[in-house]
Amino acid sequence: MTTLQNDIFLKALRCEPVSRTPIWIMRQAGRYLPEYRATRAKAGDFMSLCKNTDFATEVTLQPLDRFDLDAAILFSDILTIPDALGLGLYFETGEGPKFKNPLTDARSIQNLPRIDVNTDLQYVMNAVSSIKKALNGRVPLIGFSGSPWTLACYMIQGEGSRDFAKVKKVMYGQPELMHQLLDFLSDIVSDYLLAQIEAGADAVQIFDTWGGLLSESAYRDFSLRSMERIIERIKPTGVPIIMFTKGAGSWMHLIKGSGADCVGLDWTMNLGRARDQLGDNIAVQGNLDPSFLLTDEEKIDEQVARILGENHGRPGHIFNLGHGITPQVNPELVKFLVDRVHDLSFLQES
Amino acid sequence: MTTLQNDIFLKALRCEPVSRTPIWIMRQAGRYLPEYRATRAKAGDFMSLCKNTDFATEVTLQPLDRFDLDAAILFSDILTIPDALGLGLYFETGEGPKFKNPLTDARSIQNLPRIDVNTDLQYVMNAVSSIKKALNGRVPLIGFSGSPWTLACYMIQGEGSRDFAKVKKVMYGQPELMHQLLDFLSDIVSDYLLAQIEAGADAVQIFDTWGGLLSESAYRDFSLRSMERIIERIKPTGVPIIMFTKGAGSWMHLIKGSGADCVGLDWTMNLGRARDQLGDNIAVQGNLDPSFLLTDEEKIDEQVARILGENHGRPGHIFNLGHGITPQVNPELVKFLVDRVHDLSFLQES
Repeated sequence: MTTLQNDIFLKALRCEPVSRTPIWIMRQAGRYLPEYRATRAKAGDFMSLCKNTDFATEVTLQPLDRFDLDAAILFSDILTIPDALGLGLYFETGEGPKFKNPLTDARSIQNLPRIDVNTDLQYVMNAVSSIKKALNGRVPLIGFSGSPWTLACYMIQGEGSRDFAKVKKVMYGQPELMHQLLDFLSDIVSDYLLAQIEAGADAVQIFDTWGGLLSESAYRDFSLRSMERIIERIKPTGVPIIMFTKGAGSWMHLIKGSGADCVGLDWTMNLGRARDQLGDNIAVQGNLDPSFLLTDEEKIDEQVARILGENHGRPGHIFNLGHGITPQVNPELVKFLVDRVHDLSFLQES
Repeated sequence: MTTLQNDIFLKALRCEPVSRTPIWIMRQAGRYLPEYRATRAKAGDFMSLCKNTDFATEVTLQPLDRFDLDAAILFSDILTIPDALGLGLYFETGEGPKFKNPLTDARSIQNLPRIDVNTDLQYVMNAVSSIKKALNGRVPLIGFSGSPWTLACYMIQGEGSRDFAKVKKVMYGQPELMHQLLDFLSDIVSDYLLAQIEAGADAVQIFDTWGGLLSESAYRDFSLRSMERIIERIKPTGVPIIMFTKGAGSWMHLIKGSGADCVGLDWTMNLGRARDQLGDNIAVQGNLDPSFLLTDEEKIDEQVARILGENHGRPGHIFNLGHGITPQVNPELVKFLVDRVHDLSFLQES
């Protein structure tokens, strides 16, 4: 096992003091980088990029060569599991993910096949091993999955949606059926994250992109409950778990008891108040509005200072955006952000 | 002046005790009603429906004839002001609102014309007067406007958007310019709501549909600040003001000081906790997830009981959805909802 040369990300996840605030960026290997676009053009479509071990490794490392980031994240998609279940994931240019065969009724849910993540999603584990080797201990590697609720959203709706009305109709109208689907998915997501850890992931993140569409009680009973099942399965490995529900601003009291080591915050929340509510033993990750990367150095500088100020020097803060980086961003401003977070937090510490 | 036959909505807005919880439904005159679709077909496009006094009056009263609602709301659109400013509002089938001439630079913002709401938006005041007359005191009439921030979103982006990145780029990058636009719009919205009150509106609601896309500090400095300017202008009339920011779950401590008489809550918030944070002198409105209207009587019944339970009998609760009703809803279930809110809250009181 290679020793990590930079472990401040893992230390911060354990709420241990660090010399400077670690930073990584959601979707850091993405379209805003010309080298990413070049590799993607060679690979063809998005899923071919994910499924090719060499290409997936290459794009994962690209942002690390440009920026002083403190973690790498597996290049993959949040919807690999439904794809492996036969739903036929595809991407139309300029649009979000879609499924050729969405779930349409109780029967299609009950007939979902059992899968073995190590064979049916072998390409993901291959990518994890390959990236891990290529990193050679530079920084830790984050594995990830979509949350069961978020997977279910796309599996039933068949595509992105403003309100996911079809999915909510099932959830609110046939809660037992939704629980059946979410339990089924929780088991696979657990297996999937455990396999990524086995292949070398140093931390894992659960992306609950659509949890914030629910009422508080539905979030607790459907989305959070299924993530807690997963956390229980991962916990014995000792590998830290980041849970990120977009739009969870008023639910910190529920999330506090989830067992997650770190809570991802979107940009609408005051990071300091979230920490006050979560207590000293849970780290937080976030939470710059990605749109600030469309402005200039001065504006970004102000926001870095504001967010570090909200954290008030408490151990257990990982800087990140509050959502994925967008394609229009100038990479030079990303470099500025990363360096500024390091410099300013170093000054604060000393 | 006609005496109101049913004033429980206005009493609840003042946090006075009422015999049963009042209810109205955002977008209650809408496509889920066959009689609405019939009138709309006669009118042609959506804006022709808004601009024709007789048609606007007709559709405003349609839901009151079917359901035992405690308030009527002016039939209009949140984007009438930008339309009057010459931006050319239009609707494409199945899509949201769009503008032919969005704001593209500082010059286009600075060159916005001064308008007189009583002449340039006369059709709205005509509708208010006509509806008021047709209501003949049955229930109070609510006037409304989009919030300055929400108007600015559409005026700069030119259409709906997931992240309104163009708008945020202006706001975060050129805050003075954004303040200039928001101040300009705040003055017009104030004039507009005052003119609606003059024409007969018994209460007004500010729809801040996109405030929830902001960081907490940006919400405070841009969206909330401009709504507070409006509230200050309306306050002397004594007409109650409802402020509804979608996605404001973690900002109740800011909203508390806004001067609004009533705070609209989306369905993600726990209504009881929102009330705890807002205190006893501010009413709340909400907050059933509209998707429950796609289920059945039993499920709706459970949710009505849950929400009334969260309110715990406190004066100052107006039942509503957490967002507008959707076209797929069966009107029979709306009838069930309205009656159930009345029956169950009456039982709780006695």
